[in-house]
Amino acid sequence: MELINVSSTKRVQCIDITDKVSRLVNDMGWEEGALVLFVPHTTAGITINEGADPAVHRDVEESLTKLIPYRAAYHHLEGNSDAHIKTTLTGNSALVILENGRLRLGTWQAIFFCEYDGPRSRKVWVQYLISR
Amino acid sequence: MELINVSSTKRVQCIDITDKVSRLVNDMGWEEGALVLFVPHTTAGITINEGADPAVHRDVEESLTKLIPYRAAYHHLEGNSDAHIKTTLTGNSALVILENGRLRLGTWQAIFFCEYDGPRSRKVWVQYLISR
Amino acid sequence: MELINVSSTKRVQCIDITDKVSRLVNDMGWEEGALVLFVPHTTAGITINEGADPAVHRDVEESLTKLIPYRAAYHHLEGNSDAHIKTTLTGNSALVILENGRLRLGTWQAIFFCEYDGPRSRKVWVQYLISR
Repeated sequence: MELINVSSTKRVQCIDITDKVSRLVNDMGWEEGALVLFVPHTTAGITINEGADPAVHRDVEESLTKLIPYRAAYHHLEGNSDAHIKTTLTGNSALVILENGRLRLGTWQAIFFCEYDGPRSRKVWVQYLISR
Repeated sequence: MELINVSSTKRVQCIDITDKVSRLVNDMGWEEGALVLFVPHTTAGITINEGADPAVHRDVEESLTKLIPYRAAYHHLEGNSDAHIKTTLTGNSALVILENGRLRLGTWQAIFFCEYDGPRSRKVWVQYLISR
Repeated sequence: MELINVSSTKRVQCIDITDKVSRLVNDMGWEEGALVLFVPHTTAGITINEGADPAVHRDVEESLTKLIPYRAAYHHLEGNSDAHIKTTLTGNSALVILENGRLRLGTWQAIFFCEYDGPRSRKVWVQYLISR
């Protein structure tokens, strides 16, 4: 299992980690299969969405916050219940396909770490799964 | 990696692709493990839900559109921000288990490609992962 | 493929199944790779979130029910449309990494079976995927 480090600078922030994942694939020499990208935190998720226009992840961040407000009548008393709920809606793992030693993504796709209770230092765990 | 083609005919449309995936498993002779079903688009997702009554995916489509309206004060100017947000909520990949050369699904389960910005010609990428 | 049994006692209920999954990993002697945890039902999901404070999953349950009400103008006539929609939002599978024969989870993480139309007897299917 390998690690990727991510630093967030805002409370809610989608951070493009595609280059870090791509570099890891090259460094490790992984060839054919898939990667599990696993977020070991409970107030952060991971998603694959458009990387070209930053307005897209701004819309994702704002829409999620509209659906799940920061302050509401929550039971959990640490003041970050919204972040836990957003994590379940987004999911805490992503899968990407590897083919011929390359990460396969669609033309407009990027991999985003989704910070919901930053700023913090975070990790993404990466496990390689084989195809044959 | 293999490909499945999907054509949508509406803007928002859940399309049952179970038979296509099943046929691919037979054609490829895949035996034991799991399939990654990966949508390489940023305005379409994939989900596994009830396939028997079409009213179920109609309710899924309508509820998502109620939560994330087509038109709102979005930053992304291409008029499809709702589709990007729905993609993050649904997820762009699914996993299915293979056992003895057969796709394993629960009694009522079907695999749905979720079009959120159609009609379009789309792809699903399929990677086989092994168990032993 | 292996099975885990889960019994829910309420209509909407997040149930911690981490110990069951962990025990299965030990019993099977699985070493290195990942597990697919697949829910074969269409009115139940699976998520990884905080396991220490039960208030967290209570907030998840209540927020989801606020977003997707039990009773509304649904097309599906079985009275559980909300459960199907919550299943798509949560997802019906989770991935966990195995390293040196141990389930790897973050400090605060637990694996929750998400019942949305209980009480019922349920299953989680478990498939082991290898890393090398």
